Amino acid sequence: MAISLDELQLAARNHGLPLETLRYDVTPVGLHYLLIHFDVPAVPDGWRLRVGGLVEEELSLSLEELRARPIVRRIVTMECAGNGRARLDPHVFSQPWLAEAVGTGEWGGVRVATLLEEAGVRDGAVEVLFTGFDRGVDGGIEQAYERSLTLEEALAGDALLAYELNGEPLPPQHGAPLRLVVPGWYGMTSVKWLDRITVLDRPFEGYQQTHAYRIRRDEEDEGEPLTRIRPRALMVPPGVPDFLTRQRFLPAGPCRLEGRAWSGLAPVAAVEMSADGGATWSAAELDPPPDRWAWSRWTFEWNAEPGEHELCCRARDGAGNEQPLEPEWNVGGYANNAVQRVPVTVRAG
Amino acid sequence: MAISLDELQLAARNHGLPLETLRYDVTPVGLHYLLIHFDVPAVPDGWRLRVGGLVEEELSLSLEELRARPIVRRIVTMECAGNGRARLDPHVFSQPWLAEAVGTGEWGGVRVATLLEEAGVRDGAVEVLFTGFDRGVDGGIEQAYERSLTLEEALAGDALLAYELNGEPLPPQHGAPLRLVVPGWYGMTSVKWLDRITVLDRPFEGYQQTHAYRIRRDEEDEGEPLTRIRPRALMVPPGVPDFLTRQRFLPAGPCRLEGRAWSGLAPVAAVEMSADGGATWSAAELDPPPDRWAWSRWTFEWNAEPGEHELCCRARDGAGNEQPLEPEWNVGGYANNAVQRVPVTVRAG
Repeated sequence: MAISLDELQLAARNHGLPLETLRYDVTPVGLHYLLIHFDVPAVPDGWRLRVGGLVEEELSLSLEELRARPIVRRIVTMECAGNGRARLDPHVFSQPWLAEAVGTGEWGGVRVATLLEEAGVRDGAVEVLFTGFDRGVDGGIEQAYERSLTLEEALAGDALLAYELNGEPLPPQHGAPLRLVVPGWYGMTSVKWLDRITVLDRPFEGYQQTHAYRIRRDEEDEGEPLTRIRPRALMVPPGVPDFLTRQRFLPAGPCRLEGRAWSGLAPVAAVEMSADGGATWSAAELDPPPDRWAWSRWTFEWNAEPGEHELCCRARDGAGNEQPLEPEWNVGGYANNAVQRVPVTVRAG
Repeated sequence: MAISLDELQLAARNHGLPLETLRYDVTPVGLHYLLIHFDVPAVPDGWRLRVGGLVEEELSLSLEELRARPIVRRIVTMECAGNGRARLDPHVFSQPWLAEAVGTGEWGGVRVATLLEEAGVRDGAVEVLFTGFDRGVDGGIEQAYERSLTLEEALAGDALLAYELNGEPLPPQHGAPLRLVVPGWYGMTSVKWLDRITVLDRPFEGYQQTHAYRIRRDEEDEGEPLTRIRPRALMVPPGVPDFLTRQRFLPAGPCRLEGRAWSGLAPVAAVEMSADGGATWSAAELDPPPDRWAWSRWTFEWNAEPGEHELCCRARDGAGNEQPLEPEWNVGGYANNAVQRVPVTVRAG
């Protein structure tokens, strides 16, 4: 594998969760993964959220006015749809994530449904479009970053308009002053730096909806849209790392392995560990998640014997979705939830 | 240029400052560059800072006891010594920074000199060693991350033991509960997650001091230690980016360019801009810095004409140090402060 200059430019700006910080129930600000398509925009002074389109009454709301409404706080695990992309063969050119594009935040704000009810959705509405202030060129088209949800998802779900992260004002890089957070969905849905919300009478056909973020077998395939997060377990790599290779070293003896597991499709039902590269598996202990769409902590007592080992973990959710042992390739390099593999060197005590 | 899997593992964990966020005087938490050699460590409950070695009286201080001392706050621009490494040819394998490994924080804490005076430095002391909780293998040697300062630098300088960043408790990734901050120096000096401070009667000869962080012409060269930050100017790339290539697009007409410039050797004396790849240069407007070792904002009024341009900026400090047009190679790939080059496409209005 080799990464190009273009990809390095993305990797140097955006960042994943250092995997040892899976130890925190809620990811501290600055450690949560970040994928910024274009630039962090300078949101204008006097910002107001506009809600328009197919509504009875257009809304224009300041942050103070939003804060005056009941606050809802949800602990949500968010993952980039491109997580695992850099492990695919043939290589897919884009943000080169290995496995670390995840984080869990306590997001606070107003339910999307609350504002839509205030505005009054008119007959004939089918989707709700969320448009950010971030602008750029993608696929040759200059655009604001924008994505839609079906009206049903926007009204019935847990979708939040968040102005808080971990009890503090939303930081610029996570979408201040206001962002969408759609629990259980891959991160592309959770539009940052919201400019406006528009109720539509037809499905949105913008680039980020109809071209990007689809599972396509080949360039001719129209594909299926990405929606909810596939199951994944990640472990805190045990022992200490080599600086350059990240190879792990630990002493022989009892070793408590720990990590997190999540799925946007159903609650996590089981996590299994393998210390022999996936040949044999044993059940890990699984804690209940702190919230419906937050990750679950898991632990596994391993007796580390001297030598080289490849540690693997995998999650299965309550709907029977399980992580594959090998990556499943697609054009955009999305949703590769193949099991994590952590080579470790155990030294005699 | 191609980046290896090992380097990508580093680039996916660590991150630079997205250059558009040079717009902030003080970098918001989560945007400041991060270089974590090993792992973010789990600092033990009941942590206390130990001050020992060649002192009259050993100290053991809780965070509360440190907070009870007078707080000093300094706005400091910090840069990784490896910034610019990925632009070097031949390629140097390590954390692959392009130009973004910088940030400015308002650090708050206790002066190093204050604690050394309390402990009472004994005759024969020559250096002060700062040891972190972060452990790993580097150059084949398992070690805690540690670096020394000369006694003179530790006593006379602005070196801080910081427990605050931007008015908030220090975040885990920046060294909580306590880190060293040495204004004007490259970041490797500012040891994070401090475990202990030891006054030494001889120069420290650990790996991070005598092997790493030296400017060496070749493997046989003992080299010169890296200390203070060489001058650099960076601009906010104008216009909007292409997602994948980061190529910039902007409309023709007047365009205010802005950026920041800094040097740890002397105050910045001048910033110059070139819109033709460095063939001709014009002076930018330079603001005074908000603090002695903080970056200065600069602006430049550019009349963007349609076509392709390569924008460059360069800084010169009061001691006459100026950025080179071409990188200067060394074994570790350190301190490459060659001018930034930003290709832009200007479209007719």
